[in-house]
Amino acid sequence: MYEGPVQDLIDELGKLPGVGPKSAQRIAFHLLGVEPPDIDRLMSALQKVRDGVQFCVVCGTVSAEKECRICADPRRDRTIVCVVEEPKDVQAVERTREFRGLYHVLGGSLDPLSGIGPDQLRIRELLARIGNQQDGVDVAEVIIATDPNTEGEATATYLYRMLRDFPGLTVTRLASGLPMGGDIEFADELTLGRALSGRRAL
Amino acid sequence: MYEGPVQDLIDELGKLPGVGPKSAQRIAFHLLGVEPPDIDRLMSALQKVRDGVQFCVVCGTVSAEKECRICADPRRDRTIVCVVEEPKDVQAVERTREFRGLYHVLGGSLDPLSGIGPDQLRIRELLARIGNQQDGVDVAEVIIATDPNTEGEATATYLYRMLRDFPGLTVTRLASGLPMGGDIEFADELTLGRALSGRRAL
Repeated sequence: MYEGPVQDLIDELGKLPGVGPKSAQRIAFHLLGVEPPDIDRLMSALQKVRDGVQFCVVCGTVSAEKECRICADPRRDRTIVCVVEEPKDVQAVERTREFRGLYHVLGGSLDPLSGIGPDQLRIRELLARIGNQQDGVDVAEVIIATDPNTEGEATATYLYRMLRDFPGLTVTRLASGLPMGGDIEFADELTLGRALSGRRAL
Repeated sequence: MYEGPVQDLIDELGKLPGVGPKSAQRIAFHLLGVEPPDIDRLMSALQKVRDGVQFCVVCGTVSAEKECRICADPRRDRTIVCVVEEPKDVQAVERTREFRGLYHVLGGSLDPLSGIGPDQLRIRELLARIGNQQDGVDVAEVIIATDPNTEGEATATYLYRMLRDFPGLTVTRLASGLPMGGDIEFADELTLGRALSGRRAL
């Protein structure tokens, strides 16, 4: 619709997730009006991500150093490992401020239809971490915090089978149930069913 | 929250209009997973816009050439000029397929509080266009298509005062009234008032 570079930029922005044609146009015209250094900062951030982001050699989350801040922090409890699908799940658990252990990022969930099997995830690395001591400490608990959907549940089941025979290791799964602030009336059958079967004594 | 380049990218994306922290995170992790050439295309589009976009010397809209496709098109009616605030308004009018004349982009609307007076807009260029013939044709009508808000209305009034004394020139303004597909019940007072005062015989 527009001519030349502006349309190219609108087209490229429109390929980003959650950016429709209207937002792409709005962002492009916003960028037409900003100072060049502002665009430079965006371009340099893109360049750095394009040139490769470093992942923590221990847990696999995005990291500025060889080892991420969490893995390098001596105050974290090395006996508990929380297994998540993606780096953003690490941030979600961190935001709760309820967890002081370490993480392990799988890099996704089992999804055979998309060609993602155990070898495409960081499962071998997880087993190695639990098999070896971490800084002289044995891992006592693995919390499986994959998403509560089909792929995440399948991954959790697979991991449980791989981990249950480690001596002295407890394997747990995040509780399923009603979200806080939610409404029983509007809960879906699956969630309400999980909340019932997982009920706890008061 | 994240470390290194990923957080820098999230921060920069979050400065774009309509991109909140969640969308910025989603876009950044999407870009982590795409092929480098895809990021290169986005960066090169940004680079071209950063290095300056060309504007049509006649109407002032964004253009790939010295003169934009509309101004250069011999089939357009050179006797009618539609005055809009921004290049995106040109596209909005074009989408109606109701207008076959030329455009004039002001580059904004009068807004003295933000320091935008007549000299900051392309008003002098408009008067020059109407004063001279365009390719040997006199301009017969100027349609003022500024936004129907305070600044746009003020700009329309100002332009009308500047244009009303040109001999043989009709100055018109886009109709205000109920939006099509709208609901009288939910129309605001101002819009319904305009629809009443602008009523037409059937």
